[in-house]
Amino acid sequence: MLANHQFQLNYVTDLLGRRQLDAQDIIRQIVDFQVAIPSWALGTGGTRFGRYPSGGEPRSLEEKIEDVGLLHRLNGSSNSISLHIPWDIPQDIPALEQQLREQKLVIDSVNSNTFQDQKEQPYSYKFGSLLHTEEATRQQAIQHNIDCIGYGKQLGAKVLTVWLADGSNFPGQQHFRQAYQRTADSLASIYEAMPSDWTMLIEYKPYEPHFYSMVIPDWGTSYALSQATGKNAQVLVDLGHHLPNTNIEQIVARLLHFGRLGGFHFNGSSYGDDDLTTGSSKPFQLFLIFNELVDGKLDQAVNNPAVAYMIDASHNTKDPLEDLLQSVNSILTSYAKALIVDRATLRDAQLNNDVVKAEEILRDAFLTDVRPLVMEAYRQSGGALDPIAAYRAERIREQLIQRRGKLSVSTGL
Amino acid sequence: MLANHQFQLNYVTDLLGRRQLDAQDIIRQIVDFQVAIPSWALGTGGTRFGRYPSGGEPRSLEEKIEDVGLLHRLNGSSNSISLHIPWDIPQDIPALEQQLREQKLVIDSVNSNTFQDQKEQPYSYKFGSLLHTEEATRQQAIQHNIDCIGYGKQLGAKVLTVWLADGSNFPGQQHFRQAYQRTADSLASIYEAMPSDWTMLIEYKPYEPHFYSMVIPDWGTSYALSQATGKNAQVLVDLGHHLPNTNIEQIVARLLHFGRLGGFHFNGSSYGDDDLTTGSSKPFQLFLIFNELVDGKLDQAVNNPAVAYMIDASHNTKDPLEDLLQSVNSILTSYAKALIVDRATLRDAQLNNDVVKAEEILRDAFLTDVRPLVMEAYRQSGGALDPIAAYRAERIREQLIQRRGKLSVSTGL
Amino acid sequence: MLANHQFQLNYVTDLLGRRQLDAQDIIRQIVDFQVAIPSWALGTGGTRFGRYPSGGEPRSLEEKIEDVGLLHRLNGSSNSISLHIPWDIPQDIPALEQQLREQKLVIDSVNSNTFQDQKEQPYSYKFGSLLHTEEATRQQAIQHNIDCIGYGKQLGAKVLTVWLADGSNFPGQQHFRQAYQRTADSLASIYEAMPSDWTMLIEYKPYEPHFYSMVIPDWGTSYALSQATGKNAQVLVDLGHHLPNTNIEQIVARLLHFGRLGGFHFNGSSYGDDDLTTGSSKPFQLFLIFNELVDGKLDQAVNNPAVAYMIDASHNTKDPLEDLLQSVNSILTSYAKALIVDRATLRDAQLNNDVVKAEEILRDAFLTDVRPLVMEAYRQSGGALDPIAAYRAERIREQLIQRRGKLSVSTGL
Amino acid sequence: MLANHQFQLNYVTDLLGRRQLDAQDIIRQIVDFQVAIPSWALGTGGTRFGRYPSGGEPRSLEEKIEDVGLLHRLNGSSNSISLHIPWDIPQDIPALEQQLREQKLVIDSVNSNTFQDQKEQPYSYKFGSLLHTEEATRQQAIQHNIDCIGYGKQLGAKVLTVWLADGSNFPGQQHFRQAYQRTADSLASIYEAMPSDWTMLIEYKPYEPHFYSMVIPDWGTSYALSQATGKNAQVLVDLGHHLPNTNIEQIVARLLHFGRLGGFHFNGSSYGDDDLTTGSSKPFQLFLIFNELVDGKLDQAVNNPAVAYMIDASHNTKDPLEDLLQSVNSILTSYAKALIVDRATLRDAQLNNDVVKAEEILRDAFLTDVRPLVMEAYRQSGGALDPIAAYRAERIREQLIQRRGKLSVSTGL
Repeated sequence: MLANHQFQLNYVTDLLGRRQLDAQDIIRQIVDFQVAIPSWALGTGGTRFGRYPSGGEPRSLEEKIEDVGLLHRLNGSSNSISLHIPWDIPQDIPALEQQLREQKLVIDSVNSNTFQDQKEQPYSYKFGSLLHTEEATRQQAIQHNIDCIGYGKQLGAKVLTVWLADGSNFPGQQHFRQAYQRTADSLASIYEAMPSDWTMLIEYKPYEPHFYSMVIPDWGTSYALSQATGKNAQVLVDLGHHLPNTNIEQIVARLLHFGRLGGFHFNGSSYGDDDLTTGSSKPFQLFLIFNELVDGKLDQAVNNPAVAYMIDASHNTKDPLEDLLQSVNSILTSYAKALIVDRATLRDAQLNNDVVKAEEILRDAFLTDVRPLVMEAYRQSGGALDPIAAYRAERIREQLIQRRGKLSVSTGL
Repeated sequence: MLANHQFQLNYVTDLLGRRQLDAQDIIRQIVDFQVAIPSWALGTGGTRFGRYPSGGEPRSLEEKIEDVGLLHRLNGSSNSISLHIPWDIPQDIPALEQQLREQKLVIDSVNSNTFQDQKEQPYSYKFGSLLHTEEATRQQAIQHNIDCIGYGKQLGAKVLTVWLADGSNFPGQQHFRQAYQRTADSLASIYEAMPSDWTMLIEYKPYEPHFYSMVIPDWGTSYALSQATGKNAQVLVDLGHHLPNTNIEQIVARLLHFGRLGGFHFNGSSYGDDDLTTGSSKPFQLFLIFNELVDGKLDQAVNNPAVAYMIDASHNTKDPLEDLLQSVNSILTSYAKALIVDRATLRDAQLNNDVVKAEEILRDAFLTDVRPLVMEAYRQSGGALDPIAAYRAERIREQLIQRRGKLSVSTGL
Repeated sequence: MLANHQFQLNYVTDLLGRRQLDAQDIIRQIVDFQVAIPSWALGTGGTRFGRYPSGGEPRSLEEKIEDVGLLHRLNGSSNSISLHIPWDIPQDIPALEQQLREQKLVIDSVNSNTFQDQKEQPYSYKFGSLLHTEEATRQQAIQHNIDCIGYGKQLGAKVLTVWLADGSNFPGQQHFRQAYQRTADSLASIYEAMPSDWTMLIEYKPYEPHFYSMVIPDWGTSYALSQATGKNAQVLVDLGHHLPNTNIEQIVARLLHFGRLGGFHFNGSSYGDDDLTTGSSKPFQLFLIFNELVDGKLDQAVNNPAVAYMIDASHNTKDPLEDLLQSVNSILTSYAKALIVDRATLRDAQLNNDVVKAEEILRDAFLTDVRPLVMEAYRQSGGALDPIAAYRAERIREQLIQRRGKLSVSTGL
Repeated sequence: MLANHQFQLNYVTDLLGRRQLDAQDIIRQIVDFQVAIPSWALGTGGTRFGRYPSGGEPRSLEEKIEDVGLLHRLNGSSNSISLHIPWDIPQDIPALEQQLREQKLVIDSVNSNTFQDQKEQPYSYKFGSLLHTEEATRQQAIQHNIDCIGYGKQLGAKVLTVWLADGSNFPGQQHFRQAYQRTADSLASIYEAMPSDWTMLIEYKPYEPHFYSMVIPDWGTSYALSQATGKNAQVLVDLGHHLPNTNIEQIVARLLHFGRLGGFHFNGSSYGDDDLTTGSSKPFQLFLIFNELVDGKLDQAVNNPAVAYMIDASHNTKDPLEDLLQSVNSILTSYAKALIVDRATLRDAQLNNDVVKAEEILRDAFLTDVRPLVMEAYRQSGGALDPIAAYRAERIREQLIQRRGKLSVSTGL
């Protein structure tokens, strides 16, 4: 296998060399690229119609860290974890810190949850959280977000991700303008309690779990809310949160231009928030998105903070760990393709309105087989050339089932 | 309230009389129109993100019959129940028959469930049921459908509804042609075991719970399968099971023309299978659908069996019983509007391509306020003029909670 | 007919009176509501596949004014005209002013056209106008917009509507961030040349005539551009310019809340920018939009300038004048329904999260037959009870054909 | 360039050899694959908003044949032409035959046009053609189709493609069931006049140019019509003719399974019938479609006639000939990727429900850079390694402009 890899790597190195591109330089950039793994994606997900767990799921924050450590050992690209509160409330902080250090992991962000009622909670979110008509319910939701910041601080996180399920199912149910203003006011209260070196990410979603209106349905609303909230409030783009046929890469470019692109939730989607493996459905779109990210990063004129890259998916069909390995692989592959785009020539073609040439430059990068570069990046960061093959060869799932049981069920969707 | 009703009824009777329409005749047709209530819609539904139960939910088949009886008492339009197996396996048949007779209810259909694994079941449906690659799994699913027919026969049902969640989440996962053929073969086996006076309804759905392919994604596939299966196999149209912008009323017309429209699942939908209150989102579309149903019924040339009308919704936000009362009201209102369409003039306008006139005829029927006719139909069938008001005045939900408890949870989605 | 009208009007007056609503007051508001007619919608439109003209189309600005005057005489609700430059460059200003006065019409707005090349024009818009890579082409497009303002000033207009067809058909064709910035800079140049009592309306559209990206695809981009341009720059909402399933009424509420809703283009749409008769496809949505407009107008807290109401459609199938009469009728009917919403009770229901009640209040208003109010408004403003019937009875189209010829073709799409 | 090609070809030959695949065998299959060029795509297209011609467009059938000959010389993959009547009525048959022979071209199909009125034609298609309410109009449209067959016979075509623009813009305009039946009857009349070795392709399209209903909106309707018409009636799939998010590859598999897939119209689409360069928008989908086509061809159980492959696009932005060269290149690239799918292993993974493995097999084929195989196929069939580069180097457009003029405008959309 290594011989075969070397054969392919040599070829692509030579190929890129002929275009004055240094393969090793690109590999280094791939090595540096890290994607956060969400704690809730380590167990088998489900739909409202059912769930088919596969066993060996992590039963605690410690076991979740263990699983991410395992992924990071295999691909060297998953060095951080997104926590979800209240599913992941840390208990023994020093022990967790020790475990994170050992696995070379960090906590990147904390996600609040006001879309489900917790047992002990006095007020229900059935009719909303940050937009609720009742002051007490809003306060409870605000406090939950502030608590999340507190948990995050304990483990070194610097990002609070706010996804609001708030919305309505029927015309008339909510007063649009007032619901918006209550949401904006609640976010301002949370922002006030946030340390100045933290970032608040405001996610948008057009529908689900509500099917008439969502209070933050589109990037325009997230953007307006980030303007109203403060300079450390940013927009989070989730690939599955758009109406049919949305040009997402242009939204990415817009937000970069405005300096308000805070983060990314990667997943695959054909219809709605399908939460499938990243890249499984529209790999060309994923490449075009990375093309904007790379272009923005290279442009001095762009004044956007560092973007937080996270996976957010629900693994209903596949082994969650295999699914995550596939997702990271697709992300890195798309990133690598974006890195070899001949931007100088592209700029010329654009300025001359040579449409065919401009398109062919992107197409050339997309059609080039960069997988040997990604594999080499795995290898150089101490992972496996083929992480899924290694995962299977090591019989990791079987071991996890043995240790944790066939019926262990992780928190998540 | 009655005086106000009489005032409005008199007016609409007069108004219709001026168009040579007999209000009483229309009221009679509304009285005759019955919509089946699905047993699974009597409890609070949920999304994959959470569930907010409201209490007092029916805990047994008997209590579900009780709830439908209650609805039928209030609106006189819900005289039948759709069972869902295994959630509603009947135990004491004579007692159930007695209860049904007392409540003036019948069982219209039985719905099989091969989209969830049941505890005792040897083979999993994770990778499909009627299309499964393994013979044993297919046989288990076939037998479950045959069992459903058996349960239905015990209570006088004549319809088996087959909704298949079978599909795939990823390209390559299933072989399209073989998956289709296995499905067709399985349906044939079930059909063979079905009494000759039963109807098999084959439902289609483009996505969810699978997000790459569904084995029966569209009416064309349902139609082809019904042709292959036999003359008592029919297509079932669920209003929420279409891609964005689908012209559903034309599909209804097509199936009537082919003699293959077997049944209807009513619900409201803005995005996908939202399962909201019928008529809450697109009342004009609902009217246009009824316009086709009425037109087909009046046309001697149409050779289509009686259509089974059923609600299929998930009540996440509202009291399920109030939601069902609203849904039936919207259905009857749309039906009443379709009944007053001036078809002779419409036909003339169509033949003369007088587009404005043809459209205005439909618009006139749609804009006419026919609610007094529906209220009068309620009254004449022994129900309440305003069923929701009556439901609230009688404090029925409070009583149900008292009897069944705040935490009772019904089976369903 | 008048007797029949009086019978229906009496009923609805009585009906509303029972709800403490003054029918005459509502009629007065309907009378006051005026919708601008676009000059380009007076001729038969077409698709890229063909055009089927019906004859008698206006051949000059004078004849267009004549046609709008004719509509206004019939319905009393179309007192203004939207001009399109270069199709409607005014020549004899005093004569036009005289004609407008006689017909009781005003010019409300001027629409620029940089989506087509004009014969004499030195630079082509094939690759864009305000976003073009070439300074000279941008300047030409900027100057055209400034010229439009000049023409508008001559006839008393106060609004410049900018719809940009600028976009791209292929990935790579345009640099998203630079294309956006060039557009913003060009708009700023036009704005600078605009009198301070004018409003610039910035329209958005997700696709067509370009099918990969549009430089202003959504309300978020229009909003950001209006912020960057100045306080008299506003967003224009065209009902057909949204991706499938967009909740447009919520966008309307957002923009009102931000004080940036400048105008409306009414039309009907099932799939994309179908440009059909307003209200022909989704009358409930149209009502919900008016519900927001009325609610915003009644709310002291809303600080939004007066909204410009315009029709923007393409009449391919019907007689354009009949189509416009239908559209205005649908608009007024929706407006009337919005005026009878019981807002106090609705507010209570919303604050109490009584979802069923809130929905039923809107549903009640929507289902009420308010057509007699609209007819009475026509009558009181000197129009015909049934404008289309009057148009047909007067044989207006036949007269226009006789005067202007069977083959006269108006400018437009 | 040739050296560089040889370097890449050697590599991919070696790479495939390691998987027991014979590169030369795949190249041969690519060489054999031919795509028909539509006569109407040789000129600059347009949208309803405008057209930007580029000059040198073919002014006659002879010049269109010349242009396709030119393409075929460059890529060796475009050996046939789809005619459009009345735009391409052949005059001097022997001369045309001679020209076709010289250019090594054939006429593959004839497309009828009943979506536009021709000058001399007595009845208008404004309200439909094959579905028209008037017998005389239907007869005219039927006769036009029969005439098309006649023209096609003169030049050796064997396929009649029927695309019907018939539909309606407004509810009520057409009677759905009768409109369908009139269409079916008209098709039967045409079929009767068709030689027994001809194929009739029945195209479907959900909307445009009508925006409420199309008489053949989906594959289900095309399929039902093909069943009713006869065994030589087949379904034609146009990639741009689907509602958002349709899984087209599954439709392809269905039709192959039913033995009713007659032909393909290739183009690129992001929103609707965008008619862009094939492969420019969703290359993965194009690959998955070819995956079904290849799989069906290899399967003895599939009993489907040969599929007719045609491009159908409108070139608004690019030089039409460059656009066609790109389209054919994307088609061949997708085909080549489908040819290297490891079907035996895929079948195993599918039977074992090893979802990750099944998906990775497809992904591996998709991510492999097969362009050297396509280039070699060009070379072996006597074309250019890089047809677009050759086209530009030879300054072909400039020559065409010189010969035909800057303002020559071809027939088409």
